[in-house]
Amino acid sequence: MMDPERRKDVLLRLAKAAGQVHGIARMVNEDRYCVDVLTQISAVQKALDGAARVITRNYLERCVTDSITSGDPLIYDELMKVIDRRR
Amino acid sequence: MMDPERRKDVLLRLAKAAGQVHGIARMVNEDRYCVDVLTQISAVQKALDGAARVITRNYLERCVTDSITSGDPLIYDELMKVIDRRR
Amino acid sequence: MMDPERRKDVLLRLAKAAGQVHGIARMVNEDRYCVDVLTQISAVQKALDGAARVITRNYLERCVTDSITSGDPLIYDELMKVIDRRR
Amino acid sequence: MMDPERRKDVLLRLAKAAGQVHGIARMVNEDRYCVDVLTQISAVQKALDGAARVITRNYLERCVTDSITSGDPLIYDELMKVIDRRR
Repeated sequence: MMDPERRKDVLLRLAKAAGQVHGIARMVNEDRYCVDVLTQISAVQKALDGAARVITRNYLERCVTDSITSGDPLIYDELMKVIDRRR
Repeated sequence: MMDPERRKDVLLRLAKAAGQVHGIARMVNEDRYCVDVLTQISAVQKALDGAARVITRNYLERCVTDSITSGDPLIYDELMKVIDRRR
Repeated sequence: MMDPERRKDVLLRLAKAAGQVHGIARMVNEDRYCVDVLTQISAVQKALDGAARVITRNYLERCVTDSITSGDPLIYDELMKVIDRRR
Repeated sequence: MMDPERRKDVLLRLAKAAGQVHGIARMVNEDRYCVDVLTQISAVQKALDGAARVITRNYLERCVTDSITSGDPLIYDELMKVIDRRR
């Protein structure tokens, strides 16, 4: 379960990212300078990273905490995968 | 100028990325497992990386090639920024 | 505390990385092709990533587990920093 | 050919990185806190990134420029590989 504030935050970040992706498509259609398009792609990736950070924090405080408290040894493999994905 | 095949390719990748972002918002609303949401965020990041690669290749073959052929020394700073571009 | 097997593993990876760095310096002195030097730099970065993974796993199983079990709320900020750690 | 100033710069950065790797091994032997070791691994990776940037700049100004000026179409594949590796 994600708490309501975090969910709202993530949904806002995703809505912003979706808007940015549409803006990039428009730039490509208008034949804008490649470097400007690449800069915008980086910006949307940063917005997505922001959403991922909020979800990750929620994951640590809830799922990881529950698993560790109840002694589930499988959580470490899952957590390593999450960490590897972020790099 | 991006050549028409590449532009089409980039627009398809962006459309796919936009669809994925909407799908992620839906997952968040349905309170799906955090790790699955994070996996989907990675997937859309990869789709955007794919679009960036096509644009970068076009940039090298056109803008960078023109600038180097005409002896413009400023291209190297710009190119280094493109290379350093990270999420 | 890092367990002895992991410590040995990390030290081997670091020794390998150190050897690779010396090899790269030799390549630079011999004026080897830039792309080959860059490939070797990527290789040593991967060796260091490998060492970081082992240390991170140890950190999760020991420090993070102890902190969560004892209810220390500060562990989440620290863990987020470890996850965000990038080159 | 790397010009002498750049070569000197790269060799200094590599020597610094090698020293840092030895320092990290010492930290591991002294059983220092995992997070501090991870921070030092990030620092050496940044030093190596710095060396890679200088080599990349030299590569662009010399090899890439020569290949583009002489109309070698293979340079774009090589350059894309160099760019992908940095991300």
